[in-house]
Amino acid sequence: MDTNDKPKKQESGNRGFDFKLIHKDSSSEARFGKIVTPHGEVDTPVFMPVGTQGTVKGLTPEMVDDQGTRIILGNTYHLYLRPGHELIRDLGGLHKFMNWHRPILTDSGGFQIYSLGALRKITEEGASFQSHINGSRHFISPEICMEIQEALGSDIMMCLDECVPHPASFDYAEKSLDMTLRWARRCSAAKKNDHQALFGISQGGEYGTLRRRGIEELIDIGFDGYALGGLSVGEPKEVMREITAEFTPLLPEEKPRYLMGVGLPEDIVESVHHGIDMFDCVMPTRNARNGMLFTSTGKVVIRNARYRDDGSPVDSKCDCYTCRNYSRAYLRHLFVAGEILAIVLNTIHNIRYFMNLMQKIREAIKEDNYKAFRQDFMSRL
Amino acid sequence: MDTNDKPKKQESGNRGFDFKLIHKDSSSEARFGKIVTPHGEVDTPVFMPVGTQGTVKGLTPEMVDDQGTRIILGNTYHLYLRPGHELIRDLGGLHKFMNWHRPILTDSGGFQIYSLGALRKITEEGASFQSHINGSRHFISPEICMEIQEALGSDIMMCLDECVPHPASFDYAEKSLDMTLRWARRCSAAKKNDHQALFGISQGGEYGTLRRRGIEELIDIGFDGYALGGLSVGEPKEVMREITAEFTPLLPEEKPRYLMGVGLPEDIVESVHHGIDMFDCVMPTRNARNGMLFTSTGKVVIRNARYRDDGSPVDSKCDCYTCRNYSRAYLRHLFVAGEILAIVLNTIHNIRYFMNLMQKIREAIKEDNYKAFRQDFMSRL
Repeated sequence: MDTNDKPKKQESGNRGFDFKLIHKDSSSEARFGKIVTPHGEVDTPVFMPVGTQGTVKGLTPEMVDDQGTRIILGNTYHLYLRPGHELIRDLGGLHKFMNWHRPILTDSGGFQIYSLGALRKITEEGASFQSHINGSRHFISPEICMEIQEALGSDIMMCLDECVPHPASFDYAEKSLDMTLRWARRCSAAKKNDHQALFGISQGGEYGTLRRRGIEELIDIGFDGYALGGLSVGEPKEVMREITAEFTPLLPEEKPRYLMGVGLPEDIVESVHHGIDMFDCVMPTRNARNGMLFTSTGKVVIRNARYRDDGSPVDSKCDCYTCRNYSRAYLRHLFVAGEILAIVLNTIHNIRYFMNLMQKIREAIKEDNYKAFRQDFMSRL
Repeated sequence: MDTNDKPKKQESGNRGFDFKLIHKDSSSEARFGKIVTPHGEVDTPVFMPVGTQGTVKGLTPEMVDDQGTRIILGNTYHLYLRPGHELIRDLGGLHKFMNWHRPILTDSGGFQIYSLGALRKITEEGASFQSHINGSRHFISPEICMEIQEALGSDIMMCLDECVPHPASFDYAEKSLDMTLRWARRCSAAKKNDHQALFGISQGGEYGTLRRRGIEELIDIGFDGYALGGLSVGEPKEVMREITAEFTPLLPEEKPRYLMGVGLPEDIVESVHHGIDMFDCVMPTRNARNGMLFTSTGKVVIRNARYRDDGSPVDSKCDCYTCRNYSRAYLRHLFVAGEILAIVLNTIHNIRYFMNLMQKIREAIKEDNYKAFRQDFMSRL
């Protein structure tokens, strides 16, 4: 395969996909916008709950929707292995398969393959790896990655990239970046479907010169949106924050900017300040399963004995189904008893917490009040 | 304590509780009726899904309700141990605690204590046992059993009884029956709350003379309803069916008749034929968790490879949320992947199957067509 074919630069306006930058906060770099996809519109900044295996764990799609979710993330690696992307395609695509009819972003699987450690080998051609499920051997190239995501039928696809571990030498990070950029060109060239958008991913580790060059090359290739990748992979939080602060402004203003795998509410608030539009993280769902609930007054570990006879809701300021109908004592009982409903109710609450946070963020931006919002939020931590 | 105090015979008309026998099928002993409780009315024959630990496993109360459920069963033994009946009372009772505002029947805990085997000891005074959770020691007498169920605040309480194992000698069964009858008198005497109904339980194993005498004595004590107990405990199915056929007609016609722990759709259809009004069983919920789905064309084991790419619903004749929105392929995927949503969707379907069955049963009775309905149902097995 000739990996030097340089595809023509794509401008915005993939059929059905668009991004409208509606308002820039006057007190910060924060932006309010709208992503338009074939499955509906999404106000930004937005948080995407993770639906790894074709389900946001524990919830029906209606429950996900009811919390205010307007876009979810699906994991290409998992769906490729099980039940298989061709099966999903033959049954009408991921939206129909999982009964979620709003937008879906699929990742490339690159991060999951990276996470396999000794079970994977990366070469110029692509990534060879063994399934975490049954050890079977697989190979994914940038071209195959596009094929899989096109079979899934997501609204937004991500380029296959190599995630650089932390710490990594400059040499390693540079070689990896160059390959990731060649892969990005191959993804862009291989993409067939006009109605699916494709985002490029910035790598380069913690090295500013690499980040800068990578972003310039991605812009040269031309994508529908741009992501900062390779963060939240074990580096100190300051590194993530510094890279976000320094390089978000380099991403094209007229395209959505996505900080992958982030994250904590405070990290979201900080990153929006620098101009990030999109986030995803397993935190609200995974923490819910572990009984850790986000509230307006801090985290609640629901199995704590202090909640045994606590008749109040998890968060008296929360308007979610769980807080409107159940006491901490009941949620603690369900969790201690190992009941499935504990996971359902906790997940509803945590997703609602994130969606309410994003709603407040968007309102603060629209009111040119983001700087004060951020200060207030951080002072409460 | 003097266990010979004979309470005055209770007539129907506990405040808030009533049973109206509305129509008797002309082709069988089947009855259509209505149970009236402080938390609403229940058409009979009725099936009660089991909510062991204050939740019908996997579902929100709205999901339980949406399937047509009008009354659920709560397990006194489990709720007594965890989170504790006093805690539930202090938080406003079981209805409020679990956010289920339709009727609840609580069992006595007798069957669960019986199931503990070596961990329990039964004496005239009551049952001593060790918790299956942490081995702690407990004692429940008929009086304490009433106290617990009154703290839970169920609409229908059950008398504490000793469940006779199968097989049991006549001597054992007779001694046990006599104690169960003395316990029934003690329960009736100890009951304080006017708004909670109390049902008596017929024991006596497979011995007709004991069953007959037991029922006569229960009627003499006087209860708001009568249950056939000690069945579905390992005896051949014919024994259960014969006892139901022979002794259901001896239960007072003007009171609800409850066959405890049954069961299979065909057993329900058969028992309604003999005049049973109420059923409970973990089958729809437990089988759902194991991937076994009831359908109009027989059982579906959803993990079977034949459903891998099956785009059709579990049951094309079913109107449940699961069948309206998801394919067998998706349900199989969720189940194989160990996703919580598999349990949620399977449980919704199985409960809906049982509720639809009961609806058809009630309609057949109202149309004086139960004999033909039963023949048709049995011919399809």
